[in-house]
Amino acid sequence: MKRVYNFSAGPAVLPEVVLQKAASELLCYKESGMSVMEMSHRSADFQAIIDKAEADLRTLMNIPDTYKILFLQGGATTQFTMIPLNLFKNKSVDFIHTGAWSKKAIAEAKRYGKVNVIASSEDKNFTYIPNLDNIKISEDADYVHIVQNNTIYGTRFTKLPDTKGKILVSDMSSNILSEPININDFDLIFAGAQKNIGPAGTTIVIIKEDLITENYQPFTPLMLQYKIHADKGSMYNTPPTYGIYMCGLVFEHLINTGGVEAMYKRNLEKANLLYDYLDKSKMFKGTVAKADRSLMNVTFVASSDELNAKFIKEAKSAGLVNLKGHRSVGGMRASIYNAMPLAGVQALVDFMEKFEGEN
Amino acid sequence: MKRVYNFSAGPAVLPEVVLQKAASELLCYKESGMSVMEMSHRSADFQAIIDKAEADLRTLMNIPDTYKILFLQGGATTQFTMIPLNLFKNKSVDFIHTGAWSKKAIAEAKRYGKVNVIASSEDKNFTYIPNLDNIKISEDADYVHIVQNNTIYGTRFTKLPDTKGKILVSDMSSNILSEPININDFDLIFAGAQKNIGPAGTTIVIIKEDLITENYQPFTPLMLQYKIHADKGSMYNTPPTYGIYMCGLVFEHLINTGGVEAMYKRNLEKANLLYDYLDKSKMFKGTVAKADRSLMNVTFVASSDELNAKFIKEAKSAGLVNLKGHRSVGGMRASIYNAMPLAGVQALVDFMEKFEGEN
Repeated sequence: MKRVYNFSAGPAVLPEVVLQKAASELLCYKESGMSVMEMSHRSADFQAIIDKAEADLRTLMNIPDTYKILFLQGGATTQFTMIPLNLFKNKSVDFIHTGAWSKKAIAEAKRYGKVNVIASSEDKNFTYIPNLDNIKISEDADYVHIVQNNTIYGTRFTKLPDTKGKILVSDMSSNILSEPININDFDLIFAGAQKNIGPAGTTIVIIKEDLITENYQPFTPLMLQYKIHADKGSMYNTPPTYGIYMCGLVFEHLINTGGVEAMYKRNLEKANLLYDYLDKSKMFKGTVAKADRSLMNVTFVASSDELNAKFIKEAKSAGLVNLKGHRSVGGMRASIYNAMPLAGVQALVDFMEKFEGEN
Repeated sequence: MKRVYNFSAGPAVLPEVVLQKAASELLCYKESGMSVMEMSHRSADFQAIIDKAEADLRTLMNIPDTYKILFLQGGATTQFTMIPLNLFKNKSVDFIHTGAWSKKAIAEAKRYGKVNVIASSEDKNFTYIPNLDNIKISEDADYVHIVQNNTIYGTRFTKLPDTKGKILVSDMSSNILSEPININDFDLIFAGAQKNIGPAGTTIVIIKEDLITENYQPFTPLMLQYKIHADKGSMYNTPPTYGIYMCGLVFEHLINTGGVEAMYKRNLEKANLLYDYLDKSKMFKGTVAKADRSLMNVTFVASSDELNAKFIKEAKSAGLVNLKGHRSVGGMRASIYNAMPLAGVQALVDFMEKFEGEN
């Protein structure tokens, strides 16, 4: 069976060379005589794996020692609870509401305190990023929460809000490592691995050391306290060892291929190829404001529901799979994460041109 | 590199044929054109994987429809919080305290209510299972919690406490699928996958349907509510897809090799081989009461600390690895989970005999 071009929004495509390496080591990792899956998390071999994964992520994102990197479980959804439980003092948080993932995070934060939606693009079905120039940060806000790339709606923040010194929390699940950032602009970054990093089941948290305290809400479950994970180097309990190994392979691959700057150039090239076609097409059009277009998730529609359905079906037959848009947007979504090669985007554009010609 | 015999307590040895199958499918699962790691959890392919894993586990353990099977994250440690938060009404729980894992579960339950230690083997460093005939179940106890196999100390419950109709919760992290049980004796079973089932990062919860309610403590994080996971078929958020796939391969392999009854026979044979040798050895001896010996974790010591250290070192050179006992017991521990072949135990016994002869 030939590998397809997989435009899934997540879990998503991984670099083929990484999968090949994982397959070659699956029964026996280096000189260990066992699979990484079979390895004690207390072993020297696994400690070397997690240490290298952390070091490589620090290199890729220029993360200084004043930030801790945690490898956790439970996905972004668990962070929606951990963040308020650990950061709340006044029990108040400012949200910039840009889609389904801020909605879920808002709902959970509300169970523990006050949520101030200081900007929202809900009025136009989240097809843009609100103007950040006029936002008012709440005086009592413990932090400001943004979702930097919106997987479902296909938008992305191209600049950051001025939080007036308040803590900035960013959900980077679907854009981490896709473009350079200045780590100092952020206080807490979190990302489920399953889009740009590795298999589902590992969550990356990059958190300023001074936010890791024992001042969590008193009822905070042990496993939802940042401090216990930070104190134990992400090994208070057994971590998702194989997932961390896979993340490490992806980090290593990214370093070997030029790092985040080079990745960003490739991502721009891929996204531009697709957006340029959308802008000139008579049948297809992008669904979001041009200035706020995501580099990772490209949402678009054909000129009718029938054509959308036909396109998705025929594209699948042509080896271009998982192009169906999320039900809240409809149409199509092509997720073109780091691991999607330019050839995959080119194949998609070629197919769109052919389809447009035929229909 | 040759594969070693890995006696790790967890993450632990997996069946070699399962690893071979996983390696062969790593780049491309069946007709999907992608790795299971790259597969949307909403895809038909992944739905079939999780459905089959659940069905096979039901077959293996004779689990009727009145129990839900959940595939969660966070390990047993997360269950130490989820269980009280979801089952507490009187906020009181009875524990049979048999080692490090009941200790951790007790500490966490105490943060949310009252813990009654109704029996304990702490007086003799957990080298036995307390007599269950005289235990008094507390009138206000919401449930009784046991750790059925004690990984660190090498003991196991050979019968169950009479809970007088109270809910019985069993931590089966290190003995699930190792011997037949009567599912109707239990109300909630949980197990981290990383000993008898699959890679770390997946947690199995088998829970009676009538325990899944909205009567969790009001501050219970969304991700720690059984109901939300049960209602969504373990897919409220992205589950650890690859881990679930690996669990499924192990379940299938177990069915193909005769199920739990046949596994139990092999486990008895393996354990007896090692215990029989310990009982006749002049240098080595088992550390726990004979009647309570674990079939999964065999703890033993040589006649001096020097010999312990020498044994562990030389065994490692001979390809018998991870035999060092936990620091709270010392000496050696051979974890001989389902996936450890008889040949591995035979190799260990042969090596012990040789070592004893030489020293």
